[in-house]
Amino acid sequence: MEGSGVRTKLQAVAPEDIERRSMELIQEELDRRGIKLEGEQAPIIKRVIHTSADFDYVENLVFTPHVLAKARKALEKGAWVVTDTKMAQAGINKKALAQFGGEAVCFMADEDVSAMAKMNGTTRAVASMEKAAGLDRPLIFAIGNAPTALIRLCELVEEGRLAPELVIGVPVGFVNVVESKEMLLKVDIPAIVAKGRKGGSNIAAAIVNALLYGMKSGDHF
Amino acid sequence: MEGSGVRTKLQAVAPEDIERRSMELIQEELDRRGIKLEGEQAPIIKRVIHTSADFDYVENLVFTPHVLAKARKALEKGAWVVTDTKMAQAGINKKALAQFGGEAVCFMADEDVSAMAKMNGTTRAVASMEKAAGLDRPLIFAIGNAPTALIRLCELVEEGRLAPELVIGVPVGFVNVVESKEMLLKVDIPAIVAKGRKGGSNIAAAIVNALLYGMKSGDHF
Repeated sequence: MEGSGVRTKLQAVAPEDIERRSMELIQEELDRRGIKLEGEQAPIIKRVIHTSADFDYVENLVFTPHVLAKARKALEKGAWVVTDTKMAQAGINKKALAQFGGEAVCFMADEDVSAMAKMNGTTRAVASMEKAAGLDRPLIFAIGNAPTALIRLCELVEEGRLAPELVIGVPVGFVNVVESKEMLLKVDIPAIVAKGRKGGSNIAAAIVNALLYGMKSGDHF
Repeated sequence: MEGSGVRTKLQAVAPEDIERRSMELIQEELDRRGIKLEGEQAPIIKRVIHTSADFDYVENLVFTPHVLAKARKALEKGAWVVTDTKMAQAGINKKALAQFGGEAVCFMADEDVSAMAKMNGTTRAVASMEKAAGLDRPLIFAIGNAPTALIRLCELVEEGRLAPELVIGVPVGFVNVVESKEMLLKVDIPAIVAKGRKGGSNIAAAIVNALLYGMKSGDHF
């Protein structure tokens, strides 16, 4: 492509260095804005910015007390990660998760979930949480899409039917999204929450991956 | 959950009405901000806001001339959608795409792509574009992650090895992301681009889906 008319001046960064360079640029911008992230939360927040290019998450992300140590323990014992979209499931680093015996699962497309939702007049996301509540193992929930899933999840906890190790509550949107996150922060479960309307399947997956990479790198919480 | 302490006051919206209500709320906020979207682009921009809760996309999204009519024609003739992440592939409504004979494909995890990337010292994203260039059918590219993929795609077009029907250029991030999008806008191909750093696999999938829903609803461009 030498001499081509379309090639814009590019930064020369080798493939294996792109992520490291991205993180440096994020840190530089944080410094420029005078933002100092808290030590153990920094890699999580930076990975979310890396996945969204949105510095609003510096303000939006909320961590319940000791949540990162609890997340670490849950992953160590092979917790499964339940998502509310195939997209979030696809974005999770399954190889890293499997190193600890974990799996990423999503029940949204299951026929029994679809039937249950129809029968009960709920979203499929709600029905998929009911199904997850039947799993007899340590669970992490990564909710990046459906506030209805997050609301039902809080209810299941209140009803004593579910005791998740961690809930990543980052649904996105306009109908009951803010409310679902407020609800999560009132329930007594370890949680990482993106307050406000923002979030997404990509954000949910990025947080799971940040937790996993923190374990791998020995960058302990 | 009646009488529970955690239940926040929620909007009563039936499952089947959530999306419609979300779109109304987005329109209300656009009105409040005094933003008037261009007719044929409005459903695309609104779906991107729906998926991100980020109104920056009103400013960021750029459409090349007649791109929506061209996208429509491409989908009608069964174009495949090539993504640069499994996540974007997962987010695309495959059923809607299949109605026109299209498929969503992603070569990122293919062994030959991995081998090609290693041999050439490129990212796997670059190698996956090379592989896609070998497909003998109408192609739409939805690039939500890797600027290296978008840059290679532009080069392949310049080299006369690829003539995509449409490129959705919405990679996200910090290294060569802005530059890759500027490059795309200089190449003579129909494109929808999120200028700046923002974008993502979720945005790429949302744009594909918005195009598909526009066809289904008869909401013609």
